[in-house]
Amino acid sequence: MDALSELKMKCRRARQASRRLSYAATPVKNAALEAMAAGLISHKDRILEANAIDQIEARNAGMNPAMLDRLILTEHRLEVIAADVRCVAALPDPVGEFFDMRTLPNGLVIGKKRVPLGVIAAIYESRPNVTVDITALCLKSGNAVVLRGGKETLNTNKALVEVIIAAIESVGIDSNAVQFLDTADRALVSHLLKMSDQIDLVIPRGGTGLINFVKENSTVPVVAGGAGVCHTYVDASAKIENAVAIVYNAKIQKPSACNALDTILVHKDIAEHFLPKAAAELNRMSVELHCDPRSMGVLSKSPGLKLVPAVEDDWGREYLSLTAAVKVVDSLDEAVDHIAAYGDGHSEAIITEDYSAASRFMNEVDAAAVYVNASTRFTDGAQFGLGAEVGISTQKMHARGPLGLREITSYKWLVYGSGHVRP
Amino acid sequence: MDALSELKMKCRRARQASRRLSYAATPVKNAALEAMAAGLISHKDRILEANAIDQIEARNAGMNPAMLDRLILTEHRLEVIAADVRCVAALPDPVGEFFDMRTLPNGLVIGKKRVPLGVIAAIYESRPNVTVDITALCLKSGNAVVLRGGKETLNTNKALVEVIIAAIESVGIDSNAVQFLDTADRALVSHLLKMSDQIDLVIPRGGTGLINFVKENSTVPVVAGGAGVCHTYVDASAKIENAVAIVYNAKIQKPSACNALDTILVHKDIAEHFLPKAAAELNRMSVELHCDPRSMGVLSKSPGLKLVPAVEDDWGREYLSLTAAVKVVDSLDEAVDHIAAYGDGHSEAIITEDYSAASRFMNEVDAAAVYVNASTRFTDGAQFGLGAEVGISTQKMHARGPLGLREITSYKWLVYGSGHVRP
Repeated sequence: MDALSELKMKCRRARQASRRLSYAATPVKNAALEAMAAGLISHKDRILEANAIDQIEARNAGMNPAMLDRLILTEHRLEVIAADVRCVAALPDPVGEFFDMRTLPNGLVIGKKRVPLGVIAAIYESRPNVTVDITALCLKSGNAVVLRGGKETLNTNKALVEVIIAAIESVGIDSNAVQFLDTADRALVSHLLKMSDQIDLVIPRGGTGLINFVKENSTVPVVAGGAGVCHTYVDASAKIENAVAIVYNAKIQKPSACNALDTILVHKDIAEHFLPKAAAELNRMSVELHCDPRSMGVLSKSPGLKLVPAVEDDWGREYLSLTAAVKVVDSLDEAVDHIAAYGDGHSEAIITEDYSAASRFMNEVDAAAVYVNASTRFTDGAQFGLGAEVGISTQKMHARGPLGLREITSYKWLVYGSGHVRP
Repeated sequence: MDALSELKMKCRRARQASRRLSYAATPVKNAALEAMAAGLISHKDRILEANAIDQIEARNAGMNPAMLDRLILTEHRLEVIAADVRCVAALPDPVGEFFDMRTLPNGLVIGKKRVPLGVIAAIYESRPNVTVDITALCLKSGNAVVLRGGKETLNTNKALVEVIIAAIESVGIDSNAVQFLDTADRALVSHLLKMSDQIDLVIPRGGTGLINFVKENSTVPVVAGGAGVCHTYVDASAKIENAVAIVYNAKIQKPSACNALDTILVHKDIAEHFLPKAAAELNRMSVELHCDPRSMGVLSKSPGLKLVPAVEDDWGREYLSLTAAVKVVDSLDEAVDHIAAYGDGHSEAIITEDYSAASRFMNEVDAAAVYVNASTRFTDGAQFGLGAEVGISTQKMHARGPLGLREITSYKWLVYGSGHVRP
């Protein structure tokens, strides 16, 4: 069978298996996840052997240490992955919830029932934990999954998928619900991205290159997270200690996260007070500040800071590192306009003690999450109380912000009649 | 300015105008709709003159009478359109609703607020009422709109848009929130379909050709309605009089509607009783029945019916006419499998007195709307109590089934802190 026919066959099988999985009982789905978690531990030798081969090949190919670290599995990392699967098992099942039920004046009983999306394709890179995480989230929410991992972890992923398949078969779920594509062929991925008859949603996880490739080529709906240009605006009325602590936390706590701070906007009336203190604090972690002329004017008086003149490309740039852009603005309006122009709808914060400024910011700034007096680092499924997350959506259709189990479901309308016809 | 630059400029202006419109007060939006309704009446002469030119051009181009009828406006039709706009004004505003608000253990107050999607592009054909309907729905829900109507109603649409623009300017809303593209160039439409930075949703309204073109070329999310292959399954336990009345209603009440019946599936144990009665009733309206061999075996005994042997293409075919396919099945399982294979997820019904059969059908059939003992013709925004509808979605992402005002909104997460940083 050629690769394209095989792709089509696998997607067709996933679609077929998704039908019964869509109404599988919660205890059966949970048992599958428990068996997966147990299998990861009991087959750890086989998985680690496969991973060792991937590591050797990656080293031989000259992969850099940071990339290499992402693909490495250890006994400890496997235990963490297994624990995460058990956490997903412990979450409430989103499927089957009835809502908006009511009786219409004509006596029809009408409402909605939450159902799985159907088949989700996950296209991801390097980190082999994604194979397990995404599969667990899809199964728990009653979705079949088509996995396409990175070629650099092919052996590891194959070993993980074998364990997953055995686990779900052991509880009587059709193992066609999990399909693995062992292809590195982008043309085939392009084909997958057009199969809207078989695939209901594509989730790309990885670098900007992968995400943009998927977005630009997919006619299947895409929910892409992973990127975010986050602003924190320090209003004239901000408490300085709050502003410094929040800016520091948003930049430092995990600089590689999509919800980390990228640009500090500061009102001109507080810039002289706030900026030297914030910069001194950020300098403890050697943060490099890309400053507009006015903030440079303030900060160049302080010795020892890592200051760089900002260029146009600094606005709207996601650093993912110990770097931040700084800009002094004349007003809340200018801050809101700057965010509208350069933000990408992830997480935006205002630090203020002014009630009207807070109200206006929350009302006028359009993003997945808008904050008053808190760090943007909270934009996260676990922090928001959703349990595990599939990703963080910066688009407005379907679901926005952290995507938990419920966000990878749909609903159907139920209509109960007793011989009703339309007049 | 070339056509592409003009397109980009118009979309940019719509995006810009959408920011303030997103939090416009409900009374202001309602006043805009009232002014639109009034303007349609007070400028009826100008609109009908423009429409007369379109009619002449369409006749000269040899347009068929059915198509021609779609583009004709009369004083009465304008009054109906104006009344529809007033109905939209009277609906509750979906924007600004707060929901899922709660206090997290760390003291952060978190929740969601309903917001508009932003900019909606409507791509449609012939019927000029769509220009007004879609604009009214978009404005009420705080969305800017980019309109691309059919070239056969260009003069009418231009006159309508002039009235709309004047109306929204009269209440102080930025008229850039309504943009009209007077191009017939498909390449330009293709470009529009890739502008995901400026456009949040595309709604195609028209024939299958248009809808498929949009679906296949758009990287902007699409909500496409307008097509539906609807099955009604008459179970062994059905009350014959219910089954006959519902099948008749679902086929006859408006055969050109997407929720009209296409295929009758009937259990073998009731086929001999049900089919002759149903066929006799349908024959009053000269319905042509495309029969599988078993239903043909039953029905060919009745004289005077319009019977045609079914071919493979009859399964999964949307007739939009006084035609229906008929198939005898051995079991509920076969009916459910047939619907899974040939349905497109619009509206599916079971007629039964058997509790377990009803439960299984509602559970196992995946469609926007599933029915027990009622006509599929109820799948409609007004019938479901949503007020006006933008369309009916057969996809599972975002919203499923009839799309009312609420379904063309999104939400944002609100996070209220008091100096919160992530540990």
